[in-house]
Amino acid sequence: MKIAVLGGDGFVGWPTSLHLSNLGHEVHIVDNLSRRWIDTELGVQSLTPMDSIQERCRIWRQETGREIRFHLLDLAKEYERVKQWLAEERPDVVIHFAEQRAAPYSMKTDRHKVYTVGNNVNATHNLLAALVETGIDAHLVHLGTMGVYGYSSVGAPIPEGYLDVEIATPAGPRGQQILYPTKPGSIYHMTKSLDQILFQFYAQNDGLRITDLHQGIVWGTHTDQTRRHPQLINRFDYDGDYGTVLNRFLIQAAIGYPLTVHGTGGQTRAFIHVQDSVRCIELALSDAPEAGERVKIFNQMTETHRVRDLAELVAKITGATVAYLPNPRKEADENDLLVKNDQFLALGLDPIRLQEGLLSEVVDVAKKFAHRIDRKRVPAVSAWTRDIARRVDHDPEGKRLKSVS
Amino acid sequence: MKIAVLGGDGFVGWPTSLHLSNLGHEVHIVDNLSRRWIDTELGVQSLTPMDSIQERCRIWRQETGREIRFHLLDLAKEYERVKQWLAEERPDVVIHFAEQRAAPYSMKTDRHKVYTVGNNVNATHNLLAALVETGIDAHLVHLGTMGVYGYSSVGAPIPEGYLDVEIATPAGPRGQQILYPTKPGSIYHMTKSLDQILFQFYAQNDGLRITDLHQGIVWGTHTDQTRRHPQLINRFDYDGDYGTVLNRFLIQAAIGYPLTVHGTGGQTRAFIHVQDSVRCIELALSDAPEAGERVKIFNQMTETHRVRDLAELVAKITGATVAYLPNPRKEADENDLLVKNDQFLALGLDPIRLQEGLLSEVVDVAKKFAHRIDRKRVPAVSAWTRDIARRVDHDPEGKRLKSVS
Repeated sequence: MKIAVLGGDGFVGWPTSLHLSNLGHEVHIVDNLSRRWIDTELGVQSLTPMDSIQERCRIWRQETGREIRFHLLDLAKEYERVKQWLAEERPDVVIHFAEQRAAPYSMKTDRHKVYTVGNNVNATHNLLAALVETGIDAHLVHLGTMGVYGYSSVGAPIPEGYLDVEIATPAGPRGQQILYPTKPGSIYHMTKSLDQILFQFYAQNDGLRITDLHQGIVWGTHTDQTRRHPQLINRFDYDGDYGTVLNRFLIQAAIGYPLTVHGTGGQTRAFIHVQDSVRCIELALSDAPEAGERVKIFNQMTETHRVRDLAELVAKITGATVAYLPNPRKEADENDLLVKNDQFLALGLDPIRLQEGLLSEVVDVAKKFAHRIDRKRVPAVSAWTRDIARRVDHDPEGKRLKSVS
Repeated sequence: MKIAVLGGDGFVGWPTSLHLSNLGHEVHIVDNLSRRWIDTELGVQSLTPMDSIQERCRIWRQETGREIRFHLLDLAKEYERVKQWLAEERPDVVIHFAEQRAAPYSMKTDRHKVYTVGNNVNATHNLLAALVETGIDAHLVHLGTMGVYGYSSVGAPIPEGYLDVEIATPAGPRGQQILYPTKPGSIYHMTKSLDQILFQFYAQNDGLRITDLHQGIVWGTHTDQTRRHPQLINRFDYDGDYGTVLNRFLIQAAIGYPLTVHGTGGQTRAFIHVQDSVRCIELALSDAPEAGERVKIFNQMTETHRVRDLAELVAKITGATVAYLPNPRKEADENDLLVKNDQFLALGLDPIRLQEGLLSEVVDVAKKFAHRIDRKRVPAVSAWTRDIARRVDHDPEGKRLKSVS
């Protein structure tokens, strides 16, 4: 199949592109390279040395004989060029990763809020409008997030996208199936809630075939394909904005920095290894909805953990200490999280368990590249509100923590 | 109070500005005048001769001694100027009408879809981000629409914003209150669903005090204040994009054009007179939510009618004929609509009933300005999908209808 991977230069986009190319698909990466620009803005860099996208594609071809083409295109800002590109290339599948994906970055300042909303909503909507206008019947696969639901304790598993409710009518209770209600906890997560409404409309009005993957927090770095050559390595973010919680613990352990738990660490989150993430996308392609069908929603995660349990697990393996810091986020201190992921399991997903994969990640990546770490970039400093910013001593120099370690 | 009316040059924004100025408030109109540009784009004009906003404000001052100030500002595109304006003026209340508000216009072409989403979402979000950033504790009142819910028959009244649902848990059913699920039927309506999610987030994260008015279809032209001088007259749209159904029937009757019912006319919609609309906004101001409270949602409508019943009513009064045309919209042929509006009634709203107000509107406006009508602009030509566009003979010249009349 001909597959366009929008945002194919990113943390999940890149290994997805390799995975699908390796399966024999014709892969086109479309990206505005904004993630690299944000690295520049923040003065951070991937822990792993990452080549240009053009160079990565060249190496992939050299190693495998397979071609991945790269197209520099801004989905949010260049509607006419997007439409023209689709009309020319006519992909069978469009995989949409092309959104600003860090909650802390989206909460940094008002400028970052405005950027995240403008970028994410306009990117998704431009894509939908262009698919309708060009009449391309591609299967659209979008990377959403479990975080659209917020993290309050419901006491029941979160179903895959839809909820059966009963509405009281004079003629008795009447059943209805609705989108599971969203209550996003950051501007970033909110944009994925907005995406859901866009998808619902375009599936209903125009018969677009859409799959929305509500992903948990991705951990790990390598996939089978990124391992094939040092220059194919995936990016690894450890900074307070883009680093995800488990990857941050691993790197903190590797450099003798305490594992930073914000709040009580009672936040329960869903996780998935990056290798499983690319496998899920392959599985989603095999199970495309029909035109006129509602949006197909998968929970793309394999296990849930409390943050403090993760910290303790990493501490046990590595001997690191754990530091409990004030929480810069506005969120519940403690929450349960039960999630259904029956659909991917039924399609054949055989999850990589965190307990098994963890140690090799520490050895392979964190220790190998520890010399590249800028300790000042480790703390999470984006506060959710001004009041919280005042309360939280974010310790930007990491001084207090250095003395603990 | 100091009140900013964003979109104060529009069909509801203008009479709202006059109404609040007349009550003694300090009113500031903020508008990018996009609605006037769209008139130019479409080659249509208000049936009523409408002066520039500057001239209207001058006349208002001349007639009443009260000042309404006008500020040319693009909410969606000029974030920094919006923030600066708010920081300088520090309004007590912000009323937000500044969105593209016609469903047919939003469905015209892909360019119109992209414009409507970009304009409406970025306008609302810029406003929210700027209120947080400037720390202004203004009451934000937003004009939403009943149309966010779609028009499928539920058999139970639509509550004011929230729905009690029960979620099955292992420990038994657990009650939860959720935003009443939306299923918008056009890009325009969809943007108002997106707004709901934005409001929910900013009320929850930042304690913004927000009221969202889910308005029905507005009919009528005059309010007590627009009647005070010919140059204060409100705009009256009769074209296929911006004209609302009842106003279109009135004008069609006045020029001997058949009343154009699309589909079976079995669509039931909610209505409100423009005088009641401005009164509701006054009432909403008297009942502002507290910081930390959830978004207050009102259904701003006073009665519901089937479209074909409305046509028959107007036909009976005026002797006009009724023409049934193919429906360019993708919607249910027939739907019930029950709506709760207890909150405004409790606050003292005494509705103008359609039966009473109708005839005077015909005499006052439609006949008086009938010579200004361009018959070619009467048909509704924006089709919801390409398939519908092919099926619908939209008769852009109105030839077929001329022969009927």
